[in-house]
Amino acid sequence: MKLAFVNGNIATLQGYTLSPQRGENFGDLGLMEKGTVLVEDGYIKEVGKDLPIPSDYQIIDVQGRLVTPGLIDPHTHLVHYGSREREYTWRIQGKPYMEILKEGGGILSSVKQTRRATLEELLKQSRKSLDRMLSMGITTVENKSGYGLNLETELKQLKAGQILNKEHPVDVINTFLGAHAIPLEYKENPDGYVEEVIKMLPIVREYAQFCDVFCEEGVFSVAQSERILLKAKEYGFKLKIHADEIVPTKGAQLAARIRCVSADHLLAVDEEGIEDLANSKTIAVLLPGTSFNLMSKKYAPAQRMIEKGVAIALATDYNPGSCPTENPQLIMTLACLNLKLTPAQALAAFTINAAHSLDLAHDRGSIEKGKIADLVIFDCDNVDYIPYHFGINHVQAVYKRGVKVC
Amino acid sequence: MKLAFVNGNIATLQGYTLSPQRGENFGDLGLMEKGTVLVEDGYIKEVGKDLPIPSDYQIIDVQGRLVTPGLIDPHTHLVHYGSREREYTWRIQGKPYMEILKEGGGILSSVKQTRRATLEELLKQSRKSLDRMLSMGITTVENKSGYGLNLETELKQLKAGQILNKEHPVDVINTFLGAHAIPLEYKENPDGYVEEVIKMLPIVREYAQFCDVFCEEGVFSVAQSERILLKAKEYGFKLKIHADEIVPTKGAQLAARIRCVSADHLLAVDEEGIEDLANSKTIAVLLPGTSFNLMSKKYAPAQRMIEKGVAIALATDYNPGSCPTENPQLIMTLACLNLKLTPAQALAAFTINAAHSLDLAHDRGSIEKGKIADLVIFDCDNVDYIPYHFGINHVQAVYKRGVKVC
Ligand SMILES: [Zn+2]
Ligand SMILES: [Zn+2]
Repeated sequence: MKLAFVNGNIATLQGYTLSPQRGENFGDLGLMEKGTVLVEDGYIKEVGKDLPIPSDYQIIDVQGRLVTPGLIDPHTHLVHYGSREREYTWRIQGKPYMEILKEGGGILSSVKQTRRATLEELLKQSRKSLDRMLSMGITTVENKSGYGLNLETELKQLKAGQILNKEHPVDVINTFLGAHAIPLEYKENPDGYVEEVIKMLPIVREYAQFCDVFCEEGVFSVAQSERILLKAKEYGFKLKIHADEIVPTKGAQLAARIRCVSADHLLAVDEEGIEDLANSKTIAVLLPGTSFNLMSKKYAPAQRMIEKGVAIALATDYNPGSCPTENPQLIMTLACLNLKLTPAQALAAFTINAAHSLDLAHDRGSIEKGKIADLVIFDCDNVDYIPYHFGINHVQAVYKRGVKVC
Repeated sequence: MKLAFVNGNIATLQGYTLSPQRGENFGDLGLMEKGTVLVEDGYIKEVGKDLPIPSDYQIIDVQGRLVTPGLIDPHTHLVHYGSREREYTWRIQGKPYMEILKEGGGILSSVKQTRRATLEELLKQSRKSLDRMLSMGITTVENKSGYGLNLETELKQLKAGQILNKEHPVDVINTFLGAHAIPLEYKENPDGYVEEVIKMLPIVREYAQFCDVFCEEGVFSVAQSERILLKAKEYGFKLKIHADEIVPTKGAQLAARIRCVSADHLLAVDEEGIEDLANSKTIAVLLPGTSFNLMSKKYAPAQRMIEKGVAIALATDYNPGSCPTENPQLIMTLACLNLKLTPAQALAAFTINAAHSLDLAHDRGSIEKGKIADLVIFDCDNVDYIPYHFGINHVQAVYKRGVKVC
């Protein structure tokens, strides 16, 4: 299959757009007007202006529309079962989370539902979410386990992710998040659960590339997180961490020290944490949808991070509790309004920087010769339009590995 | 065409759900589980449980899904030309509105673009918005002029609305909003423009049912608004008003006094204004999308209004400046998160109460015998799910006057 996309307003994201401090220009879209992208056998063969188009290429005239790399969502809890709308009104009306937990809500309700669900049920629900993601421009998604909190269910979640990766056009990158919460069974013995998670590591290794820990006061301490993540590293996992979401625990510092590929959330990161991240290769994955949905006034200090040189990616954080949305375009709006990112930065954060946060920038995240031909055609001619005209899906077409999938 | 919708989780919105103070139960959805709706020739023939279904009815099994009245969006600036994403980054970065105006942005930029556009161009852009609205469950929409600010262009906008009303499944209700802003030509003579608007009234009358004024400090004073609206009443217009959006000018009091069908925005309404509205038949149309998009911390005091007995409707306020979205489901989310409405109240505010705010409750806004068969089937079984799972279009099908249009 040979395709030539012509007359594109192409946001190539070529070059290094990670962070200004490193001499890179975060938010430089590498814009090419009236550009052409040649695609062959699922890969980008050439990008440029006035390219000669060989006669065996099928020409697709995008008529001045915006062409971007496929969006990459680097932080989701895609595979889970059920939903928690029953808690929604309670939460809005200010009922404390502890009371919601007591009434059978909160994360442990999703754990219960996910444990009970069959693999087929998990797949059915997740496919629907993946279809939604694809329709909104996502071509690669990270998927965390963590609603099992026991080996059997964690494996079930990861297997579902693996099956989806094979059967669905969207690439699904699995992350083992056994350390997402302390299960009821270990309420009185959290260290015992840490040891359980460590025992799971070699078993889940073949299903997951990344290991992640929810490092937070009252969940897993920095010491516990470090213990799990260093063990995971020994088994060959790449590392991620949920860090400094609610209180500053120095999770960002840990991420930089043990070379996590990404540190996520970071609402409460302190100045030292920002500096450590700036001096590391760790990508900060920011999740403004979660602050929005939790009605928090607090958002990650994105401007301070950019100023100091931290490289920023964005993600939906799609999950049934704190952020039930698969919509990356709305997250771009929230990032502009609340993190004060420019629309161009928000796009870079959902493409090339998101690719870096999954250690996948070698083959995706930009429209460059040799990369996978994951392309989105938007029904507008500029990037600003996407977050500006909010709550609307502006995708016109999605190509995954050179094949039109949407 | 005879249709029987069976196995519906039907939010009938029957009865009076306007306001609790009046002995009505705002947010009572009149929920009917496993209910049936019989539709004949575009009207609802019967609603009930275990209804006998005559043999000439086509059966549509909705399999437990939520069925609601068609959504009604009672405040939009649907017909306009162009978009203003160029200002988006300026606005986010805190550039004052006055400077944006100086650089050719702001409302007068939309006026310029709308004046230049042909009727065909206006129709083309608006059709796209109407298609989006319909896909998200809207079956009736109000459309304000007000990007002309001269007779010729105001007429062009209203004619476009009238044509769309005829050709598109969505019913378009026109409102004349000549008094939307002071045009540049009258900068030094605002009272002169008030007289101009008054001269337009008899001419635009055949194209618009409602007359509206932007009553706000620095735009049209309460006295000017009253003058225009009372003249409009003489010509047979029903009245609306943009009131107390930024500063309390006692616009709500005016609305109650001259019996406006609705008073809209009301972020800055004072206690007396709330009481006047509660003691009137005027519906408060709240627009949380605008606060959200303008990054304002200020939202209308919805809880105080409900407590005092004001009847509340919701609308998108779709317009190219302060609220570029056609998405009523996202507005429901914003109403829950920021106005603390329950999901049920948010739905009532977008159906029966929205119908009242357009003086159309006699034939729509609820699923009741004799009303127009405008129905939405949502791909979920309960109302809470819609605002909870945010940024996603949950519509499965839309029926307008008994015909599947989406
Ligand atoms: Zn997470
Ligand atoms: Zn308005």
